[in-house]
Amino acid sequence: MAKRIITLTTDFGTASPYVAAMKGVILSRCPDVQLVDLSHAIPAQDVQHGAYFLRDALPWFPPDTIHLAVIDPGVGTGRKALCFQFEQYMLLCPDNGLVTHLPKPIQVRELNQREYWLQEVSSTFHGRDIFAPCAAALAQGVPLASLGSEVNAWKTLPVKAVKKNTHIILGEIVFIDHFGNLITNIAATDLPSRTIEVITGSRVISGMKKTYGEAMPGDLIALASSAGYLEIAVVNGNAAELLNAGIGTPVEIKAIQ
Amino acid sequence: MAKRIITLTTDFGTASPYVAAMKGVILSRCPDVQLVDLSHAIPAQDVQHGAYFLRDALPWFPPDTIHLAVIDPGVGTGRKALCFQFEQYMLLCPDNGLVTHLPKPIQVRELNQREYWLQEVSSTFHGRDIFAPCAAALAQGVPLASLGSEVNAWKTLPVKAVKKNTHIILGEIVFIDHFGNLITNIAATDLPSRTIEVITGSRVISGMKKTYGEAMPGDLIALASSAGYLEIAVVNGNAAELLNAGIGTPVEIKAIQ
Amino acid sequence: MAKRIITLTTDFGTASPYVAAMKGVILSRCPDVQLVDLSHAIPAQDVQHGAYFLRDALPWFPPDTIHLAVIDPGVGTGRKALCFQFEQYMLLCPDNGLVTHLPKPIQVRELNQREYWLQEVSSTFHGRDIFAPCAAALAQGVPLASLGSEVNAWKTLPVKAVKKNTHIILGEIVFIDHFGNLITNIAATDLPSRTIEVITGSRVISGMKKTYGEAMPGDLIALASSAGYLEIAVVNGNAAELLNAGIGTPVEIKAIQ
Repeated sequence: MAKRIITLTTDFGTASPYVAAMKGVILSRCPDVQLVDLSHAIPAQDVQHGAYFLRDALPWFPPDTIHLAVIDPGVGTGRKALCFQFEQYMLLCPDNGLVTHLPKPIQVRELNQREYWLQEVSSTFHGRDIFAPCAAALAQGVPLASLGSEVNAWKTLPVKAVKKNTHIILGEIVFIDHFGNLITNIAATDLPSRTIEVITGSRVISGMKKTYGEAMPGDLIALASSAGYLEIAVVNGNAAELLNAGIGTPVEIKAIQ
Repeated sequence: MAKRIITLTTDFGTASPYVAAMKGVILSRCPDVQLVDLSHAIPAQDVQHGAYFLRDALPWFPPDTIHLAVIDPGVGTGRKALCFQFEQYMLLCPDNGLVTHLPKPIQVRELNQREYWLQEVSSTFHGRDIFAPCAAALAQGVPLASLGSEVNAWKTLPVKAVKKNTHIILGEIVFIDHFGNLITNIAATDLPSRTIEVITGSRVISGMKKTYGEAMPGDLIALASSAGYLEIAVVNGNAAELLNAGIGTPVEIKAIQ
Repeated sequence: MAKRIITLTTDFGTASPYVAAMKGVILSRCPDVQLVDLSHAIPAQDVQHGAYFLRDALPWFPPDTIHLAVIDPGVGTGRKALCFQFEQYMLLCPDNGLVTHLPKPIQVRELNQREYWLQEVSSTFHGRDIFAPCAAALAQGVPLASLGSEVNAWKTLPVKAVKKNTHIILGEIVFIDHFGNLITNIAATDLPSRTIEVITGSRVISGMKKTYGEAMPGDLIALASSAGYLEIAVVNGNAAELLNAGIGTPVEIKAIQ
């Protein structure tokens, strides 16, 4: 039988011993689990980046995967440690909006049963002291209900709605990837079938490409991202740098004749 | 029995969800595989860097390892998705020269049997949509021949030959490692047995060292790299920065009395 | 039965093929081991950073874990390749002080039995040629005693003692983490129970916090680190940058009325 999978997503980097400590705690309690690193390079304390990362990463994993995401600027305060049971998978994470773009959960529990925590719990590292041992417990078959009491409300990040009328769609950049590609909140399926212009700052891009290779290196293009959103890219280059664009930069779509 | 190994080499970084998505696809289709990260820090779109990386990394793995390398600036264009069967291992990668420094393959197939792809294939992320599911299929025992039709030609990068005469060898820097060590294309076994001078830019290095510790911190030295090529290094320092040298910088070897 | 675990800690980065080669060597000789990446982002040649990293990472792993740490500026010189048998785990590393902050070992051996090395050993990459195959041998059940002869002395780094009198404790910064948090050598249990001031450079911090969230973003605070040492942090910010502080920067604790 395949081993139970636990994935790890953090903003800890790997020059510090924090990820290693979490792995050690999990393997000490559940040596037969399969650990999978998703990322330890989420920008420090950037819950919004983490939320989009999880949206595009988690759906690809097999059923019953246990995901652990620790981007946790509120550690040690009153913010709850939660476990979300989704239809396909579980996610353990602090209550700070990391689940914003995930589907509706079936059940949500606060990880407040201390018998599943490490015996000594620090005020600054719940990834090691609470989340890791609770994930290990789940991997070993402890029912979620044993780990804590049900909660009915949790935090989500404010999401700016895309504005549409007949001729114009107004959205914004919500994620910048490793290549400097700018991912917007405009679903590719919402784009008009007519020719469009994509406008960001003073730059106007005419029409959509299917892929990077349809244009020349250095060209600024618009296309559908691999997750199905409007993306602005520079072929073999860095659109974020070229446009000096960041999270929240407005993007306008104009349908033309 | 040991699990089948799939290794991953990309230029995706890990702040973006792309590597995670590939891992999810593989584990969804073949939960019992052993995933091994080789690198997600290949410089963006740098096929040449990737080709040297693969040359020095792949030979060390056990027979039947499945290697997956996605540095893919041409994704979505006509460039083929290939699987190379070598004597010792398989490599799935785009047809862009990543195999330049690997041995002659036994068989090469284009991954064009859509039944092994994801059902929906994007134009920008064949790592997730084609390469990952095909690697999973191979790990589960699907014969390579089922994944696509044989091809007899594939791309390789231009390789500058080293020039030699009785007294002089002319080569160049082809790889810069994490420490700023400069790896050349001059095989250590080709160096004359007499005393040599290594000349790069305006700097002259007299003779070869066996190892970094034979000289003082800060010294510029020449030695044989761990892969058997002439290497120029600064002890406990960064030769690339000191010499302001890059890929293609000429290196001259002079045999002296 | 759970697989034997081998962890990897290096300063190799992952853009270079060195980590991949080590993984390949281990898996070639012991395909059924569980490889766990602890870090490949230890700053280049920074043995002191590595020593603190190991202190805080290794204790969390299950008994019988085999740890491999290759931060090795002295590779190829007379420095020994060692294996430390601790009560809970084994650590293979060069003899350069990486064990400084670990407990007293039960047994220490020099890895000098060439039959367990790779057949050809380079002068610049003992991680691949000596440490990796010896770790694989241990994972396969070869007794430590077979790998080499016992040694009774090994290197440790100089450790500056914390100075204390009734009112003042003098220590220094010994580790800077990924968030720019400054970890000192002053044990949190050594702090006076009375109100204290923490002084570093020209900055004075009044009292201790329990956790980051007790203060406002941007505030400079002192608290106990997750490993139990006095830590100086900027809430959601970078204390190393704000204070322009580095390894060795003095920190003074003053007990006040």
